Amino acid sequence: MTAVARLAVVGTGLIGGSFALAARRAGLVGEVVGFGRRREHLELARSRGVIDRIAVSLAEAADADVILLGAPVGVCAELARGLRPHAPAATVLTDVGSVKARLVADLEDAWGGGSHVVGAHPIAGSEQTSVAAAHGDLFVGRRCVLTPTRDTGAPALALVRALWEGVGAVVEEMDARYHDALLARVSHAPHLIAYALVDAVGGWTHGADALAHAGSGFADTTRIAGSAAELWRDIVLANAPAVRAALAEFRATLGAFDDALARGDAAALDDLMERARRTRGRVGGGS
Amino acid sequence: MTAVARLAVVGTGLIGGSFALAARRAGLVGEVVGFGRRREHLELARSRGVIDRIAVSLAEAADADVILLGAPVGVCAELARGLRPHAPAATVLTDVGSVKARLVADLEDAWGGGSHVVGAHPIAGSEQTSVAAAHGDLFVGRRCVLTPTRDTGAPALALVRALWEGVGAVVEEMDARYHDALLARVSHAPHLIAYALVDAVGGWTHGADALAHAGSGFADTTRIAGSAAELWRDIVLANAPAVRAALAEFRATLGAFDDALARGDAAALDDLMERARRTRGRVGGGS
Repeated sequence: MTAVARLAVVGTGLIGGSFALAARRAGLVGEVVGFGRRREHLELARSRGVIDRIAVSLAEAADADVILLGAPVGVCAELARGLRPHAPAATVLTDVGSVKARLVADLEDAWGGGSHVVGAHPIAGSEQTSVAAAHGDLFVGRRCVLTPTRDTGAPALALVRALWEGVGAVVEEMDARYHDALLARVSHAPHLIAYALVDAVGGWTHGADALAHAGSGFADTTRIAGSAAELWRDIVLANAPAVRAALAEFRATLGAFDDALARGDAAALDDLMERARRTRGRVGGGS
Repeated sequence: MTAVARLAVVGTGLIGGSFALAARRAGLVGEVVGFGRRREHLELARSRGVIDRIAVSLAEAADADVILLGAPVGVCAELARGLRPHAPAATVLTDVGSVKARLVADLEDAWGGGSHVVGAHPIAGSEQTSVAAAHGDLFVGRRCVLTPTRDTGAPALALVRALWEGVGAVVEEMDARYHDALLARVSHAPHLIAYALVDAVGGWTHGADALAHAGSGFADTTRIAGSAAELWRDIVLANAPAVRAALAEFRATLGAFDDALARGDAAALDDLMERARRTRGRVGGGS
């Protein structure tokens, strides 16, 4: 049965677009309306069947039962403030941001209270961000973390849970600050590390030649450094204390490797690397 | 025409095994003899058609026209010393090690002079190291760096070049120290960074939960931390000064990212990330 008569996807990129495709295919939504900054992306979304029609204004997009913010984290609160005056009182606002505590607080504030706001983070996607890469299977078997607050209404939470379960995600609820602490370690800090690694090599005297001799290992390690800067700038800024803590932990650990190397301590290097290799075996997510 | 009547592959793992498969398919070699530490790997190599027969001793393996050392960097010099008394004077010794300057010097020393020794590094492979993953297309279109010294004989160099070109690699010659400086930046230091990242997350209070919430980005970034510790321990130790220099460059760059984050400097983060993103676009090798 259709859970949502009209879904508005504000920011129809990879995540928002894939959600719309999957929700439509699962029969969870009636009409899907798209809104975004770039007309050509919206036209592409419509031609690919991701959305039914393009809203020409925030006011038009606001007229929906559920609004999913698929826009970059840094602009979501402003979008919510623009949508609020035009949205029905019962409209549920949700998002897909990679950072939650500050963003959800800002969204609740913008929405005039938290009862109809549900923070969500589907752990899926890639360095691709365009709706051109959207597909309806993106969330199948992937985790989606919901971060309800003490103000979140049970009906809104149940609805958003049903939508994500309906597109195949494994849904769990988590405190937003705890979510941000976890993701700082396995996503936000690693993005900075990948960017810094590429930038360090690129800035080296023979950087161009070194990059020309990079193999698949370097390509893998730095793939996320191909991610859009404006997205990740805002994510790390919105989670700065946790990200800086994660970076400090990483820098200390790397220092231990460097110290062992400086000492020529093969046994210590072996222990550190072997422990990491075993830990790596527990990583999920497309390994 | 057959360039090599008998090839011995000492260390028939992913690289040695793939080379044997490709060279045989290209008609470059007659008989292929395998030698290694683990009987079951050699049996697998024989059953897969990677080698024709298993040498039961170093002495038997040494009776070849070309000996390719596919063993871990840390044991190659010892193997060469063991092979030398049993090898014909004209036997060409080559290797596939990821680090070259110290290793090639050790191999020349073990071989009693450099005229028949050619250092080589095919930039291909993965965190897989078993002959089970070997395939004859591994080197097609990939770079293979040869690092001749002033002692390298022209016939030996030409032969090794012909073999690598024959299996589809793009061969270039390079000073061994320069090779090691390049690879420190795009391979050796990145391995330590990936190991350290995994180890830092694994050692964090909620590390297990964080790893359970890792997405494909973390999986990509840390894939090379699944590499065998004993291989990489020896590689970074054999190239310690360059690797430590590369780590210092990386740590300084990461510090600049962290400083911008500490200041909440969105413009600086944007500049750093965007510069890295553009540089990342120049990375080859399986991107």
